[in-house]
Amino acid sequence: MGRWQPNARDRLERAALELFAQQGFAATTVPQITARAGLTTRTFFRHYADKRDVLFAGEDHVAALVAELVAAAPVPLSPMALIDQGLRVLAATAFDGRLEQLRARRAIVETDEGLRERELRKLAALSDVIAAGFQGRGADELTALVAARVAVTAFHLAVTRWLDQTGERPLGGFVDDTLAAVRSLVADAPGPPTVTWPIA
Amino acid sequence: MGRWQPNARDRLERAALELFAQQGFAATTVPQITARAGLTTRTFFRHYADKRDVLFAGEDHVAALVAELVAAAPVPLSPMALIDQGLRVLAATAFDGRLEQLRARRAIVETDEGLRERELRKLAALSDVIAAGFQGRGADELTALVAARVAVTAFHLAVTRWLDQTGERPLGGFVDDTLAAVRSLVADAPGPPTVTWPIA
Repeated sequence: MGRWQPNARDRLERAALELFAQQGFAATTVPQITARAGLTTRTFFRHYADKRDVLFAGEDHVAALVAELVAAAPVPLSPMALIDQGLRVLAATAFDGRLEQLRARRAIVETDEGLRERELRKLAALSDVIAAGFQGRGADELTALVAARVAVTAFHLAVTRWLDQTGERPLGGFVDDTLAAVRSLVADAPGPPTVTWPIA
Repeated sequence: MGRWQPNARDRLERAALELFAQQGFAATTVPQITARAGLTTRTFFRHYADKRDVLFAGEDHVAALVAELVAAAPVPLSPMALIDQGLRVLAATAFDGRLEQLRARRAIVETDEGLRERELRKLAALSDVIAAGFQGRGADELTALVAARVAVTAFHLAVTRWLDQTGERPLGGFVDDTLAAVRSLVADAPGPPTVTWPIA
């Protein structure tokens, strides 16, 4: 096993999040992170490309998990049923139990423009992964694109509300609320078809 | 009127887009843009903060227009009916007739990471404007957030497909297709409620 450290990855992440919170993302160095975690920089670079990667490696994991979820879902599931159930699986598998860690992560991402922007790009990339998955299941292109964007948008909103809560409600409940709001919005009877208003 | 130049803004935008396309965004300077447009740098800075602003000032206009559309919409319109009709108005008012210009703009945004990221942030900001507008019309917070995100996501996808087309179909048709796909997706009967699959 050599220098393999059990939980090294998790220890590095916790140390990094603490230092980012205490002294800022920009001021924190990799040696500071490894010193706090009691590990070497070699170990750090076995797990992460750089300090920014500590904040985003988990999201690569999410993208891979989502791709697998879509590919492995039972064939008869409609796209919306897959979204319904897939987002709940994702919530339980990759998010619940990590509320404090993900809150700390978000607080750091929000302090830095480059990090905020990378966060937004991650969501766009996640949408591409899901759309490809739906097309792989035989959905037409537009349906696949719409399904992917609805899934990412709803999940992102649910995660935001889950992180914002003062309680400890599981993410699945926020996913349910959000998808119910999407259904209720879209089911709304359209207004008179030719309504216009002054600005038009 | 002094040095006021009719259509100065539009001439500067066209000159900038041509230069960005020919020699790249990074290599293009404000004096080059003004020389090509036959205008002074003073005129440039009356209209734009910097060369990047040439690509994004139009989107500020879109955000202001959208805020006005939501605020001015007839009270009885449901959020989804407002989205349906508002997006068509927006398409006709701010997009149709600008296909080539917006294609050129997109091609430039795609060449530069900073520009791509700013584009994504703009969409997030637009969503915030719309959500505030829906709350101003009395929607509860979750409905307002969901409606805003569905509107931005659907419109962005429609614009992408409109720019990608080889023909000259108006944007409104792509908006209709996209909203129909959203309706069809969400109306899908959910699958068996307790389906799980191996990855869960």
